[in-house]
Amino acid sequence: MKLKSFDNMNCSLALTLDVIGERWALLILREAFFGKKRFEEFQKGLGIARNILSSRLNRLVSEGILEKRPVEASRFEYVLTQKGLELQPVLLSMTHWGDRHKPHANGDRVIFVERATGEPIAPMSVRSTDGRVLAPRDIRATAGPGSR
Amino acid sequence: MKLKSFDNMNCSLALTLDVIGERWALLILREAFFGKKRFEEFQKGLGIARNILSSRLNRLVSEGILEKRPVEASRFEYVLTQKGLELQPVLLSMTHWGDRHKPHANGDRVIFVERATGEPIAPMSVRSTDGRVLAPRDIRATAGPGSR
Repeated sequence: MKLKSFDNMNCSLALTLDVIGERWALLILREAFFGKKRFEEFQKGLGIARNILSSRLNRLVSEGILEKRPVEASRFEYVLTQKGLELQPVLLSMTHWGDRHKPHANGDRVIFVERATGEPIAPMSVRSTDGRVLAPRDIRATAGPGSR
Repeated sequence: MKLKSFDNMNCSLALTLDVIGERWALLILREAFFGKKRFEEFQKGLGIARNILSSRLNRLVSEGILEKRPVEASRFEYVLTQKGLELQPVLLSMTHWGDRHKPHANGDRVIFVERATGEPIAPMSVRSTDGRVLAPRDIRATAGPGSR
C-alpha cells in the first residue's frame, strides 16, 4: 500500500506530505491556491495520471471544496469554494513545517506575504483568543458536546 | 488504491483526513498528542492492524517525529520530539476545519483550551506578523531563494 512518493518535488508541502501522509488531493488544492483552474493546468503542474486527477477532482467537487464551472463549450474550470479556501491553514501549516524540517539549502521555496504590506505572514501557530502564541504544552484537550 | 475510510470515527481530524487524504500517521500523532505512548495504547485507540502500526511508528521514529525510548525490559514508549510537537498546527488546522465542515450535531467533539486560563484557543488562522487574522485572498505567494 505504498503510494507514489513526492520526495523529489521541490516543495515543502509535498515534502511534509511525504512524511505525514501524502495525498494528491492536497497537491491539487495547492495548485488551486496558486490560481490553477483547468484540468490541463493541474495535470501539467502535478504530472498526475489523468484518471487519478479526474477522480480526485470529482471527489473535491462532491465534497464542496472545489466548484466545477463551465467556461465555454465543454470546457470547465475548478475553483476553490469558501469551504476550500478555509483549508488554507492546513496547507500553510504543512508548508511551514516542511520549510523548517525539510529545508532547501538555499532557503524557503515559497514565501507567503500579506498582499497589502508585502510582509511575510507569521509562522502558523496555535494562539489564544487574544492572539498570544501558545506552545504545544500550553494547551489541553477537553471533551466537547459532540464527543459522543 | 482506496484506503480504509475513517468516516465512522467521531473525530474531526479523522473526518477531515477522510476528505483530504487520510493517513494513519496523523492519527497516530493525534494519539501521541493525547498522551498515548505504548504500542498497545495506539493499537487499541485506533483499531489499526499491528503490522501497519508497527511500520507507521518506525517511519515516524526514523523521521525524528517520535522518539522510541526503552521503559523497562523489552518495553518501549513513543514520545513526540520537538519536531513532532511542531506538527500541532497541522493537526489543529485539520481538526478546526472538520469541526466547521463536518460538524457533530451536538457541537464540537473536542475543545482545545489554554491550560493556564481554561479559555478555548483561537481558530487556526493565517496571521500577519503583528497578529492580525488574514483572509485567504489577503496573501500571495512569492518565489523564495529555495524555489529552484
